[in-house]
Amino acid sequence: MANKNLTVALLGFGVVGSGTAQVITENQDRICRATGRGIDIRYILDLREFPDSPFADRIVHDFHIIVNDPEVDVVVEMMGGSHPAYEFSRAALEAGKSVVTSNKEVVANFGTELLALAAEKGVRYLFEASVGGGIPVLRPLAQDMAANRVRSVSGILNGTTNYILTRMFADGASFDAALAEAQQKGYAERDPSADVDGLDAARKIVILAAMATGLRVDPNTIPVEGIRHITEADVSIAEAMNCTIKLIGHMGFVDDKLSVWVAPCMLPRQNPLSNINDVFNGVLIDTDMLGQTLFYGRGAGKLPTAGAVVSDLVDIASHPFDAATALRWADAPADALASDPADELVCLIYRKGDAMPKTDWDPIFAENAQAVIAREVEAKDVIASGEARPIACYRMSLL
Amino acid sequence: MANKNLTVALLGFGVVGSGTAQVITENQDRICRATGRGIDIRYILDLREFPDSPFADRIVHDFHIIVNDPEVDVVVEMMGGSHPAYEFSRAALEAGKSVVTSNKEVVANFGTELLALAAEKGVRYLFEASVGGGIPVLRPLAQDMAANRVRSVSGILNGTTNYILTRMFADGASFDAALAEAQQKGYAERDPSADVDGLDAARKIVILAAMATGLRVDPNTIPVEGIRHITEADVSIAEAMNCTIKLIGHMGFVDDKLSVWVAPCMLPRQNPLSNINDVFNGVLIDTDMLGQTLFYGRGAGKLPTAGAVVSDLVDIASHPFDAATALRWADAPADALASDPADELVCLIYRKGDAMPKTDWDPIFAENAQAVIAREVEAKDVIASGEARPIACYRMSLL
Repeated sequence: MANKNLTVALLGFGVVGSGTAQVITENQDRICRATGRGIDIRYILDLREFPDSPFADRIVHDFHIIVNDPEVDVVVEMMGGSHPAYEFSRAALEAGKSVVTSNKEVVANFGTELLALAAEKGVRYLFEASVGGGIPVLRPLAQDMAANRVRSVSGILNGTTNYILTRMFADGASFDAALAEAQQKGYAERDPSADVDGLDAARKIVILAAMATGLRVDPNTIPVEGIRHITEADVSIAEAMNCTIKLIGHMGFVDDKLSVWVAPCMLPRQNPLSNINDVFNGVLIDTDMLGQTLFYGRGAGKLPTAGAVVSDLVDIASHPFDAATALRWADAPADALASDPADELVCLIYRKGDAMPKTDWDPIFAENAQAVIAREVEAKDVIASGEARPIACYRMSLL
Repeated sequence: MANKNLTVALLGFGVVGSGTAQVITENQDRICRATGRGIDIRYILDLREFPDSPFADRIVHDFHIIVNDPEVDVVVEMMGGSHPAYEFSRAALEAGKSVVTSNKEVVANFGTELLALAAEKGVRYLFEASVGGGIPVLRPLAQDMAANRVRSVSGILNGTTNYILTRMFADGASFDAALAEAQQKGYAERDPSADVDGLDAARKIVILAAMATGLRVDPNTIPVEGIRHITEADVSIAEAMNCTIKLIGHMGFVDDKLSVWVAPCMLPRQNPLSNINDVFNGVLIDTDMLGQTLFYGRGAGKLPTAGAVVSDLVDIASHPFDAATALRWADAPADALASDPADELVCLIYRKGDAMPKTDWDPIFAENAQAVIAREVEAKDVIASGEARPIACYRMSLL
C-alpha cells in the first residue's frame, strides 16, 4: 500500500523555483523509488503569470490560498530576501505545514525562532539549499557527524568571490577587472556588495556553525572582511609563498569559546581548500573522530540548488517529524562567544604603507607558511604599531 | 519521555571494534542529543580476553549468547573476512536484529541477499564504514542524491595505493621502495595484494555503484587492474603531461549499460581527484541535477572508521525501519552490463617495448591530456598491434 503523495506549494517561480519544479517532474520516478511516494506540486506563488509554462494552472498570487489549504503538506520558500519570506515561513509553520527553504538570509537571521516553531507544531524546517548549493553538507553534518564534536568548519562559501579570486590568480587581473568579468558572465550581481563584502558568506558560516554547535550567532555582528581590497600585489606575494588567497568563512573555538568570522585567507597549496576554483564551493569540517572531511561541488546554479531543495522534500517524504530528533538551535549567549576574535589573528603577510612593490614587504614572512605562522606575535606587533596593514588575517590550520 | 536506549553487540574488538566502543563512550552525550536516546554496549564478541579493558565484563566468546538475547537491537560486525562474518550477519538479521558493518567484502559479495533479508525482517542493514572510512558518502548518495540520476562515480578508494603513488610522484621512488615504506609505516599489510592489485577498491566501487543504481555487480568479475606495474618512467611521463596517476574505481554508463572497473588512471591536474594525496580517499559523484560533487577525507584509521560505524547506529536510533524506504539491491542481470569494458579504453600514454627511456614513447601523446584523448583510436590501433602496452587504460572525464 503506497503512501499518499507529498503535496507541496512553491513560493517563487524564478530560477530556483522553476528548477525545483523541473527536478520534481523529471525525476518523479526516482523520488517514488526512494521514498515510496510521489511529490505533487499543487500551487506556485508568484507575482507574474506564466501562460506558456506547463505549470500555468498552478500559479496563484495570494499566499492565503496556500496557507489555508489543508491539503498542502510542505511550503517551499524560494523568494529570497527577509520579507515577506520570513512572515510566510512563520505562517506556514503556524498552520502545521513543513517548510523547506533556499533562503540563507532568513535561516541565518531567524533560524532559531523558526526551528522552535516547527518543533512546537510537529513539522520540519529544512534548508539544505541555503549553504553550498548542490553540495550535501548540512544533512551529513546533522546526521553522519552527529556523534562527533566538530572542532572547526572552514569554507569557500561564495562562488562569486571565488571566481574573482581565481581570475586574479590565473590571469593577474585586478579586482575591478575580475569583478567586471564575473558580472559579464552572470556570476556577480550588478550590485555585488553582498558577495564581495562577505555578507553572503557570513550568513552561510552562521548556518554551518549553528548546525555544528546548536548555537546561532548573529550574522550581522561577526567580524566580516570581504575581498575588495585584495590587489595584484597581494596575489604576487601569495604566489611567491606558494599560497593562494581564498575568502574563508570559519567557525572554530578559542579557549572553548565559539569564534565565527569571514575573511580572505592565505592558504598553502597543500590545504585542500586551495584547489577549489572558479564558482565552486568547498566546506572542510574537522571533527574529533572523523578528522578532516571536505565537501566540494557547485555552490549555486539552477539545478544544483533545486536538487538540494528536492533532497529536503525527499527527507520529509521519508521521515516524519520526531520530537526526539527535531533540530533545535539556541541563540548564542554572549559568554559563549570568543570575546576578541582578533586573538586568533595571524598576519600571514602584511604591507607597510599603501604602495606595494615587492621590495616593500618583509621577506622574513615569506619563507613559507609555517614560518610565517611562527612569526605570529611579531606580526601582531607590527600591525598594532600601525606601520602595516594585514591581509589574510586569520589562522588556517595547515594540512 | 526519553526513548529506550539502543542496545548493541560488537563483533570483534580489534582496531575498529575498540574504536567504536571509544566513540560510543566518549560521545554518548552527543548521541543522546541527536537521537533522544543513548547507546548501550551489552556484548563484545572476541576470541581473546581483555582483562584490563573497561569493557572486560562485556566480552563473550559465543555468538549464540548475542543472537539469542532479545534485548540486543543491533549487531555491529567488524570482524573482517567473509566467514563467519556473513553467517553471523545472516543469523542476526534472521533473529530480527539490525546489522551495521564495516566489512566491504561481505557487503560487496552478499549485499543483495542481506538487504533483502533485512527488509523481510523489518530491520536495517547499514554499512557506511565499508567505503571511504570516515567520509560520509553512502548516506548522502542514498538520501541527498535520491532524486538524482547518478551519471558516474569515480573514486580514490584505497589509501594504501594512494600513499604508494603519492610517494612515487613526490620522491621519484620505485613501486617496491614506496610499498616498503608504506609497510614500514603500517599503511600496507605484509601481504599487500588485496590493496595493490585493486581488489579492495573493486569491492568499494561495487558498493558505490549499487547505491547509485540499485544494481550490484560481482566484484570478482569486473575488470580490475592494480598498480604493481607502474614504474618511475610512467611517473615521468605523467609529470611531463602535467598529470598524476591515481588508482581509480569507476562506475559509469556506456550506451546506457552499466560499466564498473578499477584501473590506474592518468588524471590532469585540474581534476579534483588529482590533488588527493597520501592515505586520503576521495569520491567524485556526477549527477544530472547536482553536477559534480566531491567527498574527501580519511579513508581508514581507527576513529574515522569507528565514527562511520557510529553514524549508522545514530541513523538506526533516529529512524525506525520503514518498508517504503528500505534499501534494496538487485544483482545486475548480464544484459544491464556493458558487454566489453574495453570499449571505454583510452590509452592515455603507452610504451613501445619494455624498456622505458623517455625517448621511447611517442611524443604525440604527450602534448596534453585532451590531445591524448583525441588520439584514442590511434592509440587503440597501436595497442592492438602488440607494439605497445597501455597504462591508465580508461577514460576519465576531464574537468
